[in-house]
Amino acid sequence: MSIYSELADIISSRIEKGYYSIGQRLPSLRLFSKENDVSLGTAQRAYTLLEEKGLIEPKSRSGYYVRKNTNISHCYKTVDFPQEPVEVPKWDDILDLTFPPPSSNLIQLGRGLPNIEVQTLKPLLTSLSRSWVKPDLSALYYDEIKGLYKLREQISRLLIDSETQVAPEEIIITPGCHAALSIAIRSICTTGDVVVTDSPCFHGILNSLQNIGAKVIEVSSSKNQGMSLEALELALEQWPVKAILVTPNCNNPLGYIMPEDKKKDLYLLARKFDVAIIEDDIYGDLAYKYPRPRTIKSYDIDGRVLLCSSFSKTLAPGLRVGWIVPGRYLEKASYNKYSSALFLSAAPQKAIVNFIEAGFYLTHVKRMRNLYARNLAVVKQWVELSFPEDVVISEPQGGYMLWIELPKKVSVTKLNEELINEGIQISTGRIFSVSDKYNNCIRINFGARLSPRIKNAIYRIGNSIKNQLL
Amino acid sequence: MSIYSELADIISSRIEKGYYSIGQRLPSLRLFSKENDVSLGTAQRAYTLLEEKGLIEPKSRSGYYVRKNTNISHCYKTVDFPQEPVEVPKWDDILDLTFPPPSSNLIQLGRGLPNIEVQTLKPLLTSLSRSWVKPDLSALYYDEIKGLYKLREQISRLLIDSETQVAPEEIIITPGCHAALSIAIRSICTTGDVVVTDSPCFHGILNSLQNIGAKVIEVSSSKNQGMSLEALELALEQWPVKAILVTPNCNNPLGYIMPEDKKKDLYLLARKFDVAIIEDDIYGDLAYKYPRPRTIKSYDIDGRVLLCSSFSKTLAPGLRVGWIVPGRYLEKASYNKYSSALFLSAAPQKAIVNFIEAGFYLTHVKRMRNLYARNLAVVKQWVELSFPEDVVISEPQGGYMLWIELPKKVSVTKLNEELINEGIQISTGRIFSVSDKYNNCIRINFGARLSPRIKNAIYRIGNSIKNQLL
Ligand SMILES: Cc1ncc(COP(=O)(O)O)c(C=O)c1O
Ligand SMILES: Cc1ncc(COP(=O)(O)O)c(C=O)c1O
Repeated sequence: MSIYSELADIISSRIEKGYYSIGQRLPSLRLFSKENDVSLGTAQRAYTLLEEKGLIEPKSRSGYYVRKNTNISHCYKTVDFPQEPVEVPKWDDILDLTFPPPSSNLIQLGRGLPNIEVQTLKPLLTSLSRSWVKPDLSALYYDEIKGLYKLREQISRLLIDSETQVAPEEIIITPGCHAALSIAIRSICTTGDVVVTDSPCFHGILNSLQNIGAKVIEVSSSKNQGMSLEALELALEQWPVKAILVTPNCNNPLGYIMPEDKKKDLYLLARKFDVAIIEDDIYGDLAYKYPRPRTIKSYDIDGRVLLCSSFSKTLAPGLRVGWIVPGRYLEKASYNKYSSALFLSAAPQKAIVNFIEAGFYLTHVKRMRNLYARNLAVVKQWVELSFPEDVVISEPQGGYMLWIELPKKVSVTKLNEELINEGIQISTGRIFSVSDKYNNCIRINFGARLSPRIKNAIYRIGNSIKNQLL
Repeated sequence: MSIYSELADIISSRIEKGYYSIGQRLPSLRLFSKENDVSLGTAQRAYTLLEEKGLIEPKSRSGYYVRKNTNISHCYKTVDFPQEPVEVPKWDDILDLTFPPPSSNLIQLGRGLPNIEVQTLKPLLTSLSRSWVKPDLSALYYDEIKGLYKLREQISRLLIDSETQVAPEEIIITPGCHAALSIAIRSICTTGDVVVTDSPCFHGILNSLQNIGAKVIEVSSSKNQGMSLEALELALEQWPVKAILVTPNCNNPLGYIMPEDKKKDLYLLARKFDVAIIEDDIYGDLAYKYPRPRTIKSYDIDGRVLLCSSFSKTLAPGLRVGWIVPGRYLEKASYNKYSSALFLSAAPQKAIVNFIEAGFYLTHVKRMRNLYARNLAVVKQWVELSFPEDVVISEPQGGYMLWIELPKKVSVTKLNEELINEGIQISTGRIFSVSDKYNNCIRINFGARLSPRIKNAIYRIGNSIKNQLL
């Protein structure tokens, strides 16, 4: 391999690992040639090669920059490994951010709310109403500890779609996916234990880790491929990691689906270092492409994967019905469900059983998949038209979240305050990390039925950002 | 004071503290006179005085015994103070005991199930069905973090009955009382912290303490008056206690209501030693006498009492709606609710609001109060007629639990196995303690509509016990 192509490789891997982030200026040719002890000509050749590969671009008179739409996977921010495990800070404002005071006027682009106003959900409402009708009043009693057996049977059937084969006996029903994650975490970790999370990471996971006093190593995810396995391996080599927390399918907030070979490799890494994997599949059924992607659990042959999910995103969060497939931690998980008081009512479980048995679930999910894919196209266009040019927009492959990286100059805190006053709720990037990595990012939700009101809100967000850049 | 009455006082205080338990033989007159260096005549006079006070009784040719129905409060078993704080063991069988596999034939005398087949509950079922009807689909969304405001308003109103004055803003809705307790514990304690519980104690509390790794000092309760404050004070003097967990009203399992002056004194002790009180009032509205007793919270002037309760016993456990009034720990409690994923659906909350607003709640609770008081009289008679004579039966002042202390010879484990085979579920005493204090006790529930089948079951329990004593 020639020297210049070796140098090009180094840079491209640095871009991939996030040492050089999107839009960042590369070292000048002069500095680069000096640092690497090569001629200016060789340096130039390396940069030209990278330009040809579409990774960097020259800007007149100011040098080379990392391109926005590189087709290699790209980490969002420089990660310095070895990173120290850190305690999860207690956000002061997370509760306000995630649970704003109820107001009918608020345009909720912040929380992960699905569209519940579609026809295909109607039979569920009927079922829900009927679950309180005599003579079967069992819904008024305490539920079984592992949840309604019939529901576990149906979930076992649905899981086959993701090539995950588990018996109803291996499934525990939980009051939502957050509860499932909390049970999983408690089944593996205790105060002071080190865990790896993908980054950015759903804030509920970070909170549950904070609650038990676990320490976190964040491993950056690329926008198309998910967690960097190189960085993960480094972390596993250096720290006594107990569990890896990942959301590989239709990730919240990035929207990627981890390629299947990467999922397999992740599982093999976990085996090699003998750590557990806590997998969040809550958006998995909402992948735009059918058949839906596999779970990491589907590669699991020794029970180290704890699969967590719920009907909150596919049906409705108000049902509070989710599940965990805890693998070899089955007994611990049911004990933790009990001692954390994570019980649920039998009524919504019964209604969901009826809904699935009658074939309504698959119809509904198909409907939602298509609807969200269409919404994505529209909302993305609105953002592209109204936001400054140099924002980086995620490329979701499922679900209904858009992650937008704003120019560093923008204060998202100020933006958020302005928007709240205008009755627009977004999610700020900072709640997706225990460090200050995503302070210039926002997440917006395109689950709801699109309307001029939402279009207007997105344009107002774009304007606020542009105003800050004036 | 004369010597013999001094001696009598010492013995009576020992009986009260549980050094001498019910039915236990006192030292012989000869031994007693020798130990205390008094004449046989003085010893005899002390015993005669205790006999006149109704505390002990002579049995021909075998000496004096502690009487069953002494009217002083009586602890169930010898407590050796200073007791070391102990870790809560993980019961292997608790999940089987508390959550038996569902079977329609099982006679459930074990779990704390209320009667849900009464007419006065019907409007609630209607409301529940209606909560899923358009156009208001808010029940399908995520709930507010502190729960439905309207429900908090209604609970605030209901609490006035127990002279507890708190604003809706001070109340957080939880998915049941166990969840409220779990939030309370997490808001005060962390791994290794020492807490005091009443003893016997609801096993859910012990499990939640186990879950966070707290250490427990059990303070024995008398069957009529609750936790011994002398023993409590000793414990507070000797250990760095963080919280006192008590169920002062219609205690589970003993059924007592702590006298009001004792509640006040308990609160003052907590202030003196600056510890928090976690008060479980789940059965408080089911006190047989009206108006219902006060909460300890009602004496709280500095926010150190965390009041926990739910509608599980007054309405139905399947609703999964409870609350916590966390006093000065309000922020911590709402944070812990979130990070423990203890969310709930809005639907049952709305239904309960309608039920209370329409005045149905008070009617229903009145009905249940009277029903359970009547059930108690009947079931107690069945037990007295079918059990061996020397069992000690609790004297509940509310709720629907009967606690029965069996002769030491009886193996409750064996009894339980036999009963399970016969399709009868009871609660064994051992799950109400972290030590082996109540291995000869059982708890049976008289919440359900009484029937020949239940009568028959109680007689079968009595027979099994008698057979073991043959
Ligand atoms: C990735 C992810 N996991 C879990 C949850 C929590 O789901 P649930 O509402 O079922 O508890 C969410 C919801 O926001 C989520 O986005
Ligand atoms: C004293 C006591 N507290 C709390 C609970 C739990 O109540 P919930 O079902 O509302 O969680 C029970 C139920 O058995 C109980 O007896």
